[in-house]
This record gives sequence, C-alpha cells and structure tokens, in this order.
Amino acid sequence: MSKSERPQDMSRRQFLTTVGKVGGSLAVFSLMGTMGLLSPETMKAQSYTPPGQNDLSLTGRKGKKIIILGAGIAGLTAAYELEKAGYDCTVLEAKPFAGGRNFTVRRGTSLAEIGSKAQFAQFDPDSYLNAGPMRIPQFHSTLEYCREFNIPIEPFNNVNESGYYYNENVGSLSGQRIPKRAAKADVRGYVSEMLAKAVNQSALDLPLTSEEKQKLVDYLKREGDLNADLFYRGSSRGGYKEAPGGHLDAGVVRDPFDLKAIINSGFGNYFGNEYGYDQQMMMFHPVGGMDKIVQGFEKRLGNRVKLSAEVTEIRQSADGVRIRYKQKNKELELTGDYCICTIPLSVLRKIPADFSSKMASAIATTKYASAGKIGLQFKRRFWEEDEHLYGGSSLTNMDITQIYYPPTDYMSKKGVLLGYYVTGTNADKLGSMSYHEREKHALAQGAKIHPQYIKEFESSYSIDWKRVPFQEGAWATYSTEERAGIYKTLCEPDDRIYLAGDHISHIVAWQAGAIDSARSVVGHIHQRVMQA
Amino acid sequence: MSKSERPQDMSRRQFLTTVGKVGGSLAVFSLMGTMGLLSPETMKAQSYTPPGQNDLSLTGRKGKKIIILGAGIAGLTAAYELEKAGYDCTVLEAKPFAGGRNFTVRRGTSLAEIGSKAQFAQFDPDSYLNAGPMRIPQFHSTLEYCREFNIPIEPFNNVNESGYYYNENVGSLSGQRIPKRAAKADVRGYVSEMLAKAVNQSALDLPLTSEEKQKLVDYLKREGDLNADLFYRGSSRGGYKEAPGGHLDAGVVRDPFDLKAIINSGFGNYFGNEYGYDQQMMMFHPVGGMDKIVQGFEKRLGNRVKLSAEVTEIRQSADGVRIRYKQKNKELELTGDYCICTIPLSVLRKIPADFSSKMASAIATTKYASAGKIGLQFKRRFWEEDEHLYGGSSLTNMDITQIYYPPTDYMSKKGVLLGYYVTGTNADKLGSMSYHEREKHALAQGAKIHPQYIKEFESSYSIDWKRVPFQEGAWATYSTEERAGIYKTLCEPDDRIYLAGDHISHIVAWQAGAIDSARSVVGHIHQRVMQA
Repeated sequence: MSKSERPQDMSRRQFLTTVGKVGGSLAVFSLMGTMGLLSPETMKAQSYTPPGQNDLSLTGRKGKKIIILGAGIAGLTAAYELEKAGYDCTVLEAKPFAGGRNFTVRRGTSLAEIGSKAQFAQFDPDSYLNAGPMRIPQFHSTLEYCREFNIPIEPFNNVNESGYYYNENVGSLSGQRIPKRAAKADVRGYVSEMLAKAVNQSALDLPLTSEEKQKLVDYLKREGDLNADLFYRGSSRGGYKEAPGGHLDAGVVRDPFDLKAIINSGFGNYFGNEYGYDQQMMMFHPVGGMDKIVQGFEKRLGNRVKLSAEVTEIRQSADGVRIRYKQKNKELELTGDYCICTIPLSVLRKIPADFSSKMASAIATTKYASAGKIGLQFKRRFWEEDEHLYGGSSLTNMDITQIYYPPTDYMSKKGVLLGYYVTGTNADKLGSMSYHEREKHALAQGAKIHPQYIKEFESSYSIDWKRVPFQEGAWATYSTEERAGIYKTLCEPDDRIYLAGDHISHIVAWQAGAIDSARSVVGHIHQRVMQA
Repeated sequence: MSKSERPQDMSRRQFLTTVGKVGGSLAVFSLMGTMGLLSPETMKAQSYTPPGQNDLSLTGRKGKKIIILGAGIAGLTAAYELEKAGYDCTVLEAKPFAGGRNFTVRRGTSLAEIGSKAQFAQFDPDSYLNAGPMRIPQFHSTLEYCREFNIPIEPFNNVNESGYYYNENVGSLSGQRIPKRAAKADVRGYVSEMLAKAVNQSALDLPLTSEEKQKLVDYLKREGDLNADLFYRGSSRGGYKEAPGGHLDAGVVRDPFDLKAIINSGFGNYFGNEYGYDQQMMMFHPVGGMDKIVQGFEKRLGNRVKLSAEVTEIRQSADGVRIRYKQKNKELELTGDYCICTIPLSVLRKIPADFSSKMASAIATTKYASAGKIGLQFKRRFWEEDEHLYGGSSLTNMDITQIYYPPTDYMSKKGVLLGYYVTGTNADKLGSMSYHEREKHALAQGAKIHPQYIKEFESSYSIDWKRVPFQEGAWATYSTEERAGIYKTLCEPDDRIYLAGDHISHIVAWQAGAIDSARSVVGHIHQRVMQA
C-alpha cells in the first residue's frame, strides 16, 4: 500500500480491515489478538505476515464455546466474526428482538417503557423512525457490514442550508425562524470583515509577510463575500427576497441582519455542529431503516441468537463460564469456555455475577447519559411541498433542540419527521412525560417553526432510552479521569469474561464503537485460544 | 398563506407555483402573462383571484398553433405547459435526440463533435455520465417536474469533507492531497484565533458592548475549536493520524499545518464553492440520470416532438410564422400563429430569420462560455473501497480543476467518475485535444490525486460543449452592461417570435433558467391570445 494510497488518518481498525483484505479474516483475528502488545508501527511493519497467521488452524478452536450476552451490534458482531473463525457461539438477548439501540420503529412496533404501558407505532407501511443510531460517517466500520451484507445505503442529510435556526430570548431575532444560509452568510460576512480590516493593523502583529497578509485578506473577501472596500453588505449566499427567474426577474437579495442582532442570536454557535469529525457530510444510512444491519447479522447467525432470554446469573470458574437465564418462564443454564458480555453496565450492575471487586465497582460507577427521540407522522411533506426543504435539520434553543426531516423517500406523500432528538436535562424533562404529553410538547414547540404541524399531524412514537427495559440509558459517559481509571478496568478481561459494546470504545454512542470493541475482544479471545 | 408558511425568499416563480396549486395551471398562465405589468406586491395581493382567471376558456385557444424550435428543457417545458392549456404545439429538434444540454451519456451513446469523428460510450449498463447539468438545488423549479412526472430523486453529494484539495506551486503543501476537513479545520482555527485575540484590542474599535464582544469570542472559540487561551492547536475536526476505536484505542489527532503553509496553499479560497446559493447542500439529481426529466416530457408530448429536424429558415408575417426545416434530406415547412425559439444564440445567429435588426444584432453579439467534462469508468470504486470517500469532489489548481465521485450506486462494483469539469481556458485547452488526448490528460493529472487511476481505468467519454453540433457553447454570459442592453432586447417578443432558454433568464446554465423562461413566455403568449 503506497503512502498516497493510504488514507491520511489510517487507524488500527482501518489497518486491520486492510490486512483482512490481504490475509483473510483469520489474519485479522490473530493480529487483533496482539493489538495490545504491538505498537502501530510494528503492526504496519508486519502487516503482510501477521504473527500467528501461519500456525492458525481450526483444531485449536474446535468445540470452543463462547456465550455472548446481548444481541446489540456488539454482540451480533462478536458472534458473526467468531463463527466465521470457527467458534461455537450462543447469543442471549433479553428483549424479544435483536439490535439493542439499533431500533427502527415501524407500524406495529410496540414497547413498554419502564413504568408505562406499551406504546404502539401506527406509522404507515414504509415509514419508519430510527429511534437509536440514524446516521453513519463514511469512515466508520459500520459501513463495512453494509458492504458485506449487500445493504443499500443512501445519504443522510446532516447538512441542509435550507433548514432553520429558531431561538427564543436572544434579542431582536427572537422567535423568528431564520434559514441557516442567512445566518451563516451574515456571521461569516461580518466576522471576515472584522478580521480583514484588522489584518493590516500593527496592533495585531501577525507573523506574516505583507504578501501573505494580502492572501489572507483575499481569502477573507471570498469567505465573507465582502465588497472591494472589505465591507459585508449582504450576499446572495444568504438567500433572496425575490429569487431570480426568467426574463427580467433578476432577483433581489435579502437584507443582512445587523451585526448586533446576529451576534446576540447565538446562531453562530450552531455552525460547529456540522464541523465535528463524526458529523461532517457525507453521512449515510441503510435504505429502509438502520435495522437492516441487524437483519443482516440475524440472517447469518440463525438460531444462535436466543431472544427473550434474560440473563439472571453470570458465573465463572477456572475451566469455564456458566450463565443462567430465564426464557418463557423457564430457568435455563448454559456453559461455555468464555463469555462476551455486551449488556449495558446500567443493567449489568444489577445482575449477580462473578466479577472481581475491581471490575464490579467499575461496572457499578460508570455513568450513563439520557437521550430521547420522537417520530411525528404527517399527512403530507409540507417541509418539501411548501418550503423546498428536503432532509436536514432545524435547530432551536427550545426543549425539542432539533428537528430532522426524513432523509429518504423524497416527494412521497407522507413522512415521519424526527420531532425532537434531545439529551441531558431536555431528555430527562421529556422522558418524564407520558407518551401523549411528549407528543403535545413536540407539536406545540415544533409548530412555532412549522405552523403546518397543527393541521397535518397524524401520529407519533417517542422513546426515552433511560426508560427502555434492558437498556436503561443512552450511552456511557467518561470523564478524563474515568478514562484513566475505571475505563481501563472495563477494558481488561475479567478472567474468562470480556466486556464489549460502544461503552468499551472511544466511539461511544456510535455503532462503530460497538463493532470495534467486539472485533477487538474476538481478537483477544482467539489469541488466548491459540496460545493455550 | 401565513407569513411564516411563506418561504423567506418567495420568488415570483415560487409564488406562481403556489397560485398554480390554488387556481390550477390556467391561473398560472394568465398571471404569468401579466408578470411584466404587475409589481410583486400587487401580484401577491391578488394571489387567490388572479386576473383573467374567470374569463379563461379553451375557445380562445382552439386551433392556435405554436411552433417551438429546440427540444431542450425550455422547448419541452413550453410545449408541455401549452398543451396542458389547450394549445397545439410542434417541437423541431435538430439532433436525433431531445434534451439539449440535459445529456446523459450511457453505453451506446455516440456523438461526433464538430471537426471530429463520432465518440462511442462504452460504460457498463447502469453507469452513466451527466454530461450537462448534474445537480439540482432544492428550490429550483426543475424539481417541480421531477414531482409531476414521479421521477425518484436522490441527493447529489456536493459537499464531502473526505474529498481532497490538491494544489501545485503553492509552497510547502504543493503536490500533496489534503483532506478538505484538514484544510478547513486549520484555516477556521487560525482565522478564529487571530480575530479572537483582536476583538478586545481597542485598535479594532468594534461597535460592540463588552458582553457582545464576549459572545463573539465564545463563537470564535467554537468556530475555530480554540483552547481556553484562544489558541488553535489542531482539532479532531481535521481528522486523525490514528482514528479512535475500541478499548484503549483513543485515537491521535493529526498535527495542524502551520499558519504560513495553509495561507500559501490557497485551499481557503475553495471553501466558498460550497457557500453559493445554488451550490449549497442539499442538492439532488434524478435516480438513473438527469435525462429522466427529458423522458418525462417526451412521454407526455409523444409525436409533437420531431427529431433530426434542422431549422433552416425562420419567417414571420402579420398573420403568422413560417418555419422551414430539413428532415431526412427532405425540405419541409411548418406554419403557425407564434414561434418560441429556444435555439442557442450561438447557432441561431447563423439561421436566416425575420428578426428586427435590433434583435438580430443582440442575437449576434451575445457571448457564450466554454465548458467540458469527461467521464472515467474504473474497474472498482477505489475511492470508496480504499479511501472511505462516497461522492463529493476533489478540487485542484491543475487543468482538470475538479473530480466528482459518483453520487449514486454506492458500494457497487464499478463506477463512472467525473474526471474533470472545466470551464474557460481549461475547457478550451482540453476541448482542443482529441478524445484520446483528453483521456490521457485527465488520467495523468487525476493519478496525482488517486494513484489507483492507472491500474483501474477502463474507458472514458468526454465532451466539449463548444464543439457539440447545434449547441456550440456551454451557456450565454452577460456583463452588467449587456444585461441592461442586448439582454433586454432578447427578452422582448420579436413580433410573433419569442426567445426562451436559460439564456433568457437570470439562472443561466441551470435547467431552472430554461424552465422559468419557458413558463414566462407561455404566460405572455397566452395573455396575448386571451386579449386578441
């Protein structure tokens, strides 16, 4: 692989994928097994003859039983990769369906949140809500399984300049929905103007030659669409009062907001949302729902995945693991050589288990974040029909935080819009409401941005992840100190039990975190088996 | 329509669309007919009872014959809308196929550029190159026909942070492909740092309260991802040397380029490409090729469109128009009441016609731009497989200017990549080469960004719009003076002959310009017929 062919941010994961292409999945496993021991440099040096590959054989693995707890993306990945490598896996899933937080709500989906009655989704056929993960960055390992399972993907519109900002109590722009393009043009314009004028002031004392300063000013003129005198006087980038058209319809550019108004609006603080490494376009999602990925794994794992199987005890001894679980009111038991536990720590901490005291306390003290979503089905796609808005989001400082327009089935009659995606205190506030109260709140606040809400609304389905049985949280959160402390403990095998999941990764809250941690655990177990 | 329901940049076109929803297409026509006479305000005031709507009847139109020259998007739109309103239309198209610059190149497509032999496309089935328009902004009227004709659309990836910048002779970053996210993070970081430090310097003398200055600094910290001391020290937004993954794989953020290197690279000057009103995400295109729109019109117009019918004379008298044309070596003639001429002025100026001398000289002096594209089919999608790059573009200061990765059929085996999209002198340089020389040049320069080019290349198809028969140019260009002079003449009917096309609009080079000008001409003719 020549330097220029190698992606600039070559990661261990991407590296292993490449090795996989070359040496086959076993090469990956054995390499993964040694990930902890080898520095990336050594690994790259040995990339084409991964250690242990030559002495790999199925004999070592024959009959080795791995019990996997949880059929979320981590559990499914571990089972799928281990089976490929010749291991014998059983996956126990407490819920009646697999996928964990990869949860696509469709007509007929029903789930009772803790302390509430069941909620039934009444969306039209072909409409859905991805209640958990809804988008995939191009570089996440998640896409590798879309490819492997031939799951068609389509763009997820994470950026749409036609979306709106709507803030309350921010001065003169309060309570107005402002197209993102307008706020961006004005902020970039004024900011570029300020710096362009400052560049040549000695006070700034920039370490630049006058030629470089001129290049900087030229850039700022373009960046802010400034006039020859370096003033921002509005820009077509921000949109038109009268759009250009045929004949003499030249178009009339909107008037810019004044500097104070736009600074006080706080809109500028939303721009960064689109800059994050894992939020930048292009993003993608499977056509037809995120759970196509779950179905891809299930199809290949068949009856190795046991649903409605709630783990009640996790035991281990010198020579194996013993898992007790309930299924259809039956008390059952399973024994194996190793256990991969992907159960959320918020749930795991309540299950009797033979963990070291150090591991037990790490599991007990890990904090979990709140998150909630609501899907709103409307009679017609007024955002497309009335507002020429196809996918993307609107952001607000109201409780609902953000609205996402369906990034699929454009121009179809109806649509399920993401009425809110909330975290933290907003999630706790909305989560504490009844399903009906959540719906009312989402409609009341959303209607301030889209008055059509009132007339066009049909049905909703909401979720509060802290109240979902066997999840009891959105994702783990670690402070820098916790990453250096309890997190390290969680990453170590507890004798024959390995933890996996996005909480055992540095890509928390993403499917790729679950996948990468599962692959790494698979590698560790395989290495251990090979060396035994 | 309440204020809040009305798009901020409500244009006459969008307004007419709305009226159309309310009063039906006839309302649109009669309104359009008066567009020139009414101010937008009056129009809006009368939006629900458009003048002339009540006295509309088919009788006035019975037997009225309109001859339309050119079956590009303007000609097809005019014919389709006139037929809907009860007029009798014939469209004469010189080429053996309709669509004009809406030209999708597929396996079997062949076209001989002026002075060259025919070129045959050898792309795989299902692969295509949109040699003309390839993307549609959300607010363009073009999407209204996608909706009306039930043409599925999908996003056109106009923004992809995983694409590259590659410049030569720009200092220390010359000849390196740099991911867009890296250049953007560094430029935004340094620029925000400079201004954040300047804000509180009295020298800058900003008209802001200290509270507003603090808000500005807070914004700049977010915008540039600055540290607490307002320094830019790199950002994960720019990507990683080692991407984060499972377990202890925390990831290592790339090192930023130094300020001088990034300023001299000129990369910052590319950012603006994504800010343009008609270039901002989201953009869309029809699934399967832009010519799905042409096929939508053709299906509805049937044999009213005569192909391989080359206009040789355009005549008019007090009571009608007379068009002579060649078809299969036959000299034919057609008479009608009015003529809508969408023939590119670069071609029209050579056809004997009864234009006023003022119109004739306006037609003769309008300038046309150059543009060219090349489609490159590769054996595999190495940009996706090797580089996690799904759609979007890479930009360079080499002749090829830009590369676009196919925004469709992700993860399929092969792909047709847009190897260059050039205008101006680059278009003239590449256009003057043979098909084979263009291919060699595109491959040689593209391989500097993607070394895989060499091994994976299969076949190409290139186009130079100045050399396409019956086009002879990419699009009309007008200076401010020309907009105030010859353009006004072109917009006026020349007795019974009306010009239409994107060159008769303020959306030159876009299909929406052709559509809007055609709709407006249809409105004018209808108004004239109604008043006769």
